[in-house]
Amino acid sequence: MTVITLMTDFGIKDGNVGVMKGVIRGIEPEVDIVDLSHLISPQNIQEAALILSRSAPYFQDGSIHVVVVDPGVGTSRRPLAARLGYQYFVAPDNGVLTLMLENAEKQNWPIQIVHLDRPEFWRPQVSHVFHGRDIFAPAAAWLASGISIEQMGTPISNPVRIAFPRPTLTATGFRSEVVHIDHFGNLSTSVRREDLGEPPQVVVRLGKAEIHGLVQTFGERPPGALVALYGSTDYLIVCKVNGSAAAELGVKVGDPVEVLVTNP
Amino acid sequence: MTVITLMTDFGIKDGNVGVMKGVIRGIEPEVDIVDLSHLISPQNIQEAALILSRSAPYFQDGSIHVVVVDPGVGTSRRPLAARLGYQYFVAPDNGVLTLMLENAEKQNWPIQIVHLDRPEFWRPQVSHVFHGRDIFAPAAAWLASGISIEQMGTPISNPVRIAFPRPTLTATGFRSEVVHIDHFGNLSTSVRREDLGEPPQVVVRLGKAEIHGLVQTFGERPPGALVALYGSTDYLIVCKVNGSAAAELGVKVGDPVEVLVTNP
Amino acid sequence: MTVITLMTDFGIKDGNVGVMKGVIRGIEPEVDIVDLSHLISPQNIQEAALILSRSAPYFQDGSIHVVVVDPGVGTSRRPLAARLGYQYFVAPDNGVLTLMLENAEKQNWPIQIVHLDRPEFWRPQVSHVFHGRDIFAPAAAWLASGISIEQMGTPISNPVRIAFPRPTLTATGFRSEVVHIDHFGNLSTSVRREDLGEPPQVVVRLGKAEIHGLVQTFGERPPGALVALYGSTDYLIVCKVNGSAAAELGVKVGDPVEVLVTNP
Repeated sequence: MTVITLMTDFGIKDGNVGVMKGVIRGIEPEVDIVDLSHLISPQNIQEAALILSRSAPYFQDGSIHVVVVDPGVGTSRRPLAARLGYQYFVAPDNGVLTLMLENAEKQNWPIQIVHLDRPEFWRPQVSHVFHGRDIFAPAAAWLASGISIEQMGTPISNPVRIAFPRPTLTATGFRSEVVHIDHFGNLSTSVRREDLGEPPQVVVRLGKAEIHGLVQTFGERPPGALVALYGSTDYLIVCKVNGSAAAELGVKVGDPVEVLVTNP
Repeated sequence: MTVITLMTDFGIKDGNVGVMKGVIRGIEPEVDIVDLSHLISPQNIQEAALILSRSAPYFQDGSIHVVVVDPGVGTSRRPLAARLGYQYFVAPDNGVLTLMLENAEKQNWPIQIVHLDRPEFWRPQVSHVFHGRDIFAPAAAWLASGISIEQMGTPISNPVRIAFPRPTLTATGFRSEVVHIDHFGNLSTSVRREDLGEPPQVVVRLGKAEIHGLVQTFGERPPGALVALYGSTDYLIVCKVNGSAAAELGVKVGDPVEVLVTNP
Repeated sequence: MTVITLMTDFGIKDGNVGVMKGVIRGIEPEVDIVDLSHLISPQNIQEAALILSRSAPYFQDGSIHVVVVDPGVGTSRRPLAARLGYQYFVAPDNGVLTLMLENAEKQNWPIQIVHLDRPEFWRPQVSHVFHGRDIFAPAAAWLASGISIEQMGTPISNPVRIAFPRPTLTATGFRSEVVHIDHFGNLSTSVRREDLGEPPQVVVRLGKAEIHGLVQTFGERPPGALVALYGSTDYLIVCKVNGSAAAELGVKVGDPVEVLVTNP
């Protein structure tokens, strides 16, 4: 069965995610629907893009990822479907697919993007405020049912892209920033494993903390210690062992991080 | 596969929702279980009824909706199963089905309601405090497995109904109230699209806000603006663009809303 | 289809639970994945063990329960798979299976435990910080696909066990403690129905409260009353009717509870 993943900023209280699942199954019952996140911060396209880019690669070919973080719902922003390599994406044209698209380009994967402008693949009545239910969920279901992406809309080549914070090379290393804070209070930077020497000898400065060297995992230091290490998707992260680095350091997304490379 | 939806006030921390799914699949493995909400405010029958009425119509015929918001669990309140039109409902007899029932009556749909009084369709041991696990989940599973609603219990015709806030016609328009606050802080009133002239010329007063005219969607006004519009289920709602109207206005469910109709 | 349940302390914001589901389905698509809880308090092995022990019995034979509450991830703590009776468990060797194991021993069920030390059943690249994705999810998927537990790793007989609070017999009854606080604020003790006489005549002292006698269910007392009763898994619990006993009494997990048995 085709896997359809859902990522929204809808929360899980009001029934809206369930409604999208009802609509999908009403069109194509033979799907496996997986929730990626419904707690994206309201209207936070960058956060959704980041989590999508770190999650989608773990799904099999043919999976369909639906992202509804959509401050422009009901305006002229276009609803899109995209084939990027061997996975499919359904989302508003607001930049939420930027990282997936960049990756597909870098990998030289096949890319197809269409404007979902064919009302026969929408619900008969389209609300101005809930395209997740009326356009995106149906589009995912029709894709899963075997409709090709070409049939679903007009090809486009200019999807909206948004800028993401990248680490800047400095005389002593990298200037980066906090790009994500997870459920545990772990702080992700924009510096990747490939950016640093191996084995890296670094000093990480973030808020009041100065961390010397990287560990491989939390358990190498006692509970309460601040550590720097590579996270599960190879970004440099700062964590408090068995605690919340975000709470300890009082930092937020966008706060600066300095990485001094001390390799000889 | 039959879709079974679950709506409870159990939260998602303690494993109870998972347990209901285990019980359902132990009786009938071939079901698609969809979570509608498990964050209904504790014992809030009115909130559950409202979300159910705005969600159930998006599911296909034959779906089974289980609602366990049940302050009377273990007392003499009856467990019910109902066929309302072409969907099924399993819930305590406390009024949580009122809106679905009223709609079925208005539409002249077939209606069948039974008291789930046949222990052969319960779990062998019934706890006094968790009928979701021991009565409602099994009932939904047996329905999905093909047992007819008549076999499951004794027909009744007097299910409990509860009163819902309706808008009151005034000399100048409608007096309504806040009936729901969603995850974004959007405020839903009880006034429906059909209550107002088209195109409606209205002034909406809520807390300290006075909003002139309706928009079609959020993006017509700048971030931070308060707007009034029709929500995705055609109720008049008050929202803050890219923000929380509830936080901005400090209002709560039950607070009064005045809608002045100024159509000539 | 085989049921795989997931219990973690990952929260539901960051996509990590979805990623585990993607990995599982990439190995074995024909599974039913059920979330037990992803809101286990961070690194709280005891809480996970407790919720697991109260949930797993409601799943059918052959179910596979994956628990990833794993403060020792990436260290020398072993990843395990266990067959306990007719269900399977996949978890770090940190004591989170203690209660399931004790129960299996008490029931004289077949027990098999292996160290998941065969890399051919891991993801090709194993992160030091996300064994849920790279070791535990694949192990569950391979089990579901028909690989036997013997094939998955080396048998072990010394899994880590942790101590759980048990009630102590006193001259007048039992000394216990608060072992869990649920979503409603209900307080669970470690005293079981089988520990007390039937019908039990008891006085329960907890914080500032002294509760005389047990009720069968919440609805026997007016809203706001504190009551003691047996919960749905037969532990003595203290609740506030239509309210939160935890908020009312300001107690926390570990706080003492005294149960005076007054049966003649």
